[in-house]
Amino acid sequence: MPELRKDPVLGRWVIIAMERARRPGNFVDAQKNVFTDTQSAHEGQEEIYAVKDNGGKDQPWKVRVVPGGTPLLKADAKISRRGKGLYDVLNGYGLHEIVIESPDPIANMADLEVSQIRLVIDTYVSRLNELSKDPSIAYAFVYKNYGETSGQDMGHSYSQILALPVIPYRIKEKLHGARRHFQIHERCVYTDMVRQEEKERSRLIVENEHYMAMTPFASRVPFEVLILPKRQNCDFTHGVLGTEEAFAWILKQILLRFKIGLNDPAYTFVLVSSPFRGKQVEGKKWPTLEEDFCWHLEITPRLTRVAGFEKGTGFYICPIPPEEMAEFLRTVEIK
Amino acid sequence: MPELRKDPVLGRWVIIAMERARRPGNFVDAQKNVFTDTQSAHEGQEEIYAVKDNGGKDQPWKVRVVPGGTPLLKADAKISRRGKGLYDVLNGYGLHEIVIESPDPIANMADLEVSQIRLVIDTYVSRLNELSKDPSIAYAFVYKNYGETSGQDMGHSYSQILALPVIPYRIKEKLHGARRHFQIHERCVYTDMVRQEEKERSRLIVENEHYMAMTPFASRVPFEVLILPKRQNCDFTHGVLGTEEAFAWILKQILLRFKIGLNDPAYTFVLVSSPFRGKQVEGKKWPTLEEDFCWHLEITPRLTRVAGFEKGTGFYICPIPPEEMAEFLRTVEIK
Repeated sequence: MPELRKDPVLGRWVIIAMERARRPGNFVDAQKNVFTDTQSAHEGQEEIYAVKDNGGKDQPWKVRVVPGGTPLLKADAKISRRGKGLYDVLNGYGLHEIVIESPDPIANMADLEVSQIRLVIDTYVSRLNELSKDPSIAYAFVYKNYGETSGQDMGHSYSQILALPVIPYRIKEKLHGARRHFQIHERCVYTDMVRQEEKERSRLIVENEHYMAMTPFASRVPFEVLILPKRQNCDFTHGVLGTEEAFAWILKQILLRFKIGLNDPAYTFVLVSSPFRGKQVEGKKWPTLEEDFCWHLEITPRLTRVAGFEKGTGFYICPIPPEEMAEFLRTVEIK
Repeated sequence: MPELRKDPVLGRWVIIAMERARRPGNFVDAQKNVFTDTQSAHEGQEEIYAVKDNGGKDQPWKVRVVPGGTPLLKADAKISRRGKGLYDVLNGYGLHEIVIESPDPIANMADLEVSQIRLVIDTYVSRLNELSKDPSIAYAFVYKNYGETSGQDMGHSYSQILALPVIPYRIKEKLHGARRHFQIHERCVYTDMVRQEEKERSRLIVENEHYMAMTPFASRVPFEVLILPKRQNCDFTHGVLGTEEAFAWILKQILLRFKIGLNDPAYTFVLVSSPFRGKQVEGKKWPTLEEDFCWHLEITPRLTRVAGFEKGTGFYICPIPPEEMAEFLRTVEIK
C-alpha cells in the first residue's frame, strides 16, 4: 500500500511507493533510467468513460478515458490517517486516469482539430464532476506531459487526471496567495492580472472573447504561458461552461506556436482549479470564497534544464524577458 | 540591468535577464541547448578570496573564490524598488561567486580529502560572514551543481554562492513552516526530527558526534539526503564553528556513497541557513527567533526525471521508500 507522507516543515504531501516497485540498484544507471508516469499500452483496458457520436453505444469512441497505470494510488481502500511521532501519514487513496484524446495516431494535441480539443475539454469537465462526488477526494487536476516519454508513447495524444485526498502543495500556496490578495484588495488577483495585461499588452500572446494567453510577469522559465479566463470563476468545470470552444481554440493556438516556433518541444500543462466545493480538506472544510481565486492553465515547455539550486531554493533565473517571449510567440506564423 | 520580479500570487521572486543574452531563436533547438549557470573558464580572473598555507601571500592557493560568470546579478547598483501596477520589481542587485575547492583537477568533491573539504567549509563561513556585512543583501546561500555541465566544466570541483536582496521562495516557506511548528510546540522542528531519527534509525545513513545524515521521511525524489547538526543553531556560520571537521567528514561520506553506490550521479546540494541576522528583509526586519530554525544541507542526486506536473503542482511521487534508500546508502562499501 502506497503512503502519502507530509513534510513536517513545509506541510507538503508526497506519495511514497511502499511496494518495492524498483530495487535501489535500478537507480544506479542514472541517466538512462528515467522514471515515467505513463504506461506502455492502454489498449484492451477497462473503459472508464468515452465520448461517442450521438452517445451511441456501438459507435467508435472519439475520446476515451482508461485507468492510469500508476500503482501508486489505490481506489479500493478506506482512507486513514495516522501519526508517527512528528510525522503524518495517510494511505495512498486516489485515482489516476488517462484521457486518450483521439482515436487517430496523433501524438501532439497541437495537431488535433479545435472541435476535437473541445471534446477533450468536455471530457475533463465530465470526469472532474464525477470525481468530485467521491467523498474521499479533496482535489483533482488534469495535466499533460508531452514529449517526455518518446519511444514509450502510445502514439495517441493523451492527458492525465490525478485525484487526491489532499491538496497539492503549490496549489495550496496559490490559494493562500490569492486569499491574501483578496483580503487586502477585495479583488481576485487573477482578474487584476487580466485587466493589467489587457492594458499593457506586452506579455499578451493571443486572446479571444473569453480567454487570454500571456507570459507571466515573473516567469520562471523561458516561454512559460498562462491561459486565463476573462470572466473570474474559481472552478474550471463551472467557469468553462459555454466557452469550451473558445478555450479549445486558445489552447491549440499556444500549442501550435510552441510546435512551429520552438521546434516541437516537450511541454507540460497543468489545469489549476479550486478544491472541490464543500469538501473536507485536511480536517476542515476548505473555505472557498469563490471570488478570491480563478481557474487557469499553466503551460511550460521544457527548453532549458532547471538548475538544482532552483528546485532547492525556489529561486529561479529566467534568461529571457517575458516581454520578448510574448513578442516571439505572437509572431510565429501558424498555418 | 537584470530585474527581480515578484509573482503576485505566490510572492516568489525571480531573476529576469533583461539584456538580450539569448535571442528567442536560441531556444529552438531545445534538447541540445541547455542553459547552465557556470562559465567555461575561471583562470585569470580576479580573486575575491583565497586560502593559503600560513596565510602566506606568495604561497599557492588551496581554495579560491572568484566572481561568478552570471551577468544576471550586478554588485555595482543601488538597490531600488518599484511597482508596476499589480507587480513588484527590484533591480537585480546581488553577488555570484565561485568557490574553487582545490588546485588539483579533481571534479567531484567526494574525492577531496576531509581536510581539504574542511578548508572549503571554512571558506563558506568566511564568505558568508563577509557578504552579511553588505546592507543590501538579505540572504546568501551556498550551492553546488555537480555533473550537470559535463564538457563545460573546468575540471576542478567547485561550489557557488548567490547573495540576494530577497529571501528565496522555498527558504521563506521553510522559515514560516518552522515558525508554525515552534508556535505550537515551542521546539525547533529540525531538532524534533533529529531526536526522532536518532531513535527510529530506519532513515539514518551515517552519523558522528555532531551531525546526522538521513533520507527525509517525506522524500520527494530517490536518494534525497538531509544533513542536520545535532545541536540546534539557525545560522550556519555560527553553528558549524568547532565542528567543521565533523561536517566535512559526513559530507564526504554521503558524496562517496552516491559516487560508489549510485554510479557517480549528477547531484545538487543547497546549504540552508536563516537570513542574515538583523537584516531588513522585504521591508521589515526578519524576526529571527533563532531557536525556531536550524541550518541544514540538502543533497539531491539527479537519478530520475521530475515529471512536469510535479513542478507545476508541487505534488511529488517518490518511487522508493526513504527507509530503503537509507538502507541502501548505509551498506555501500566505501574505501
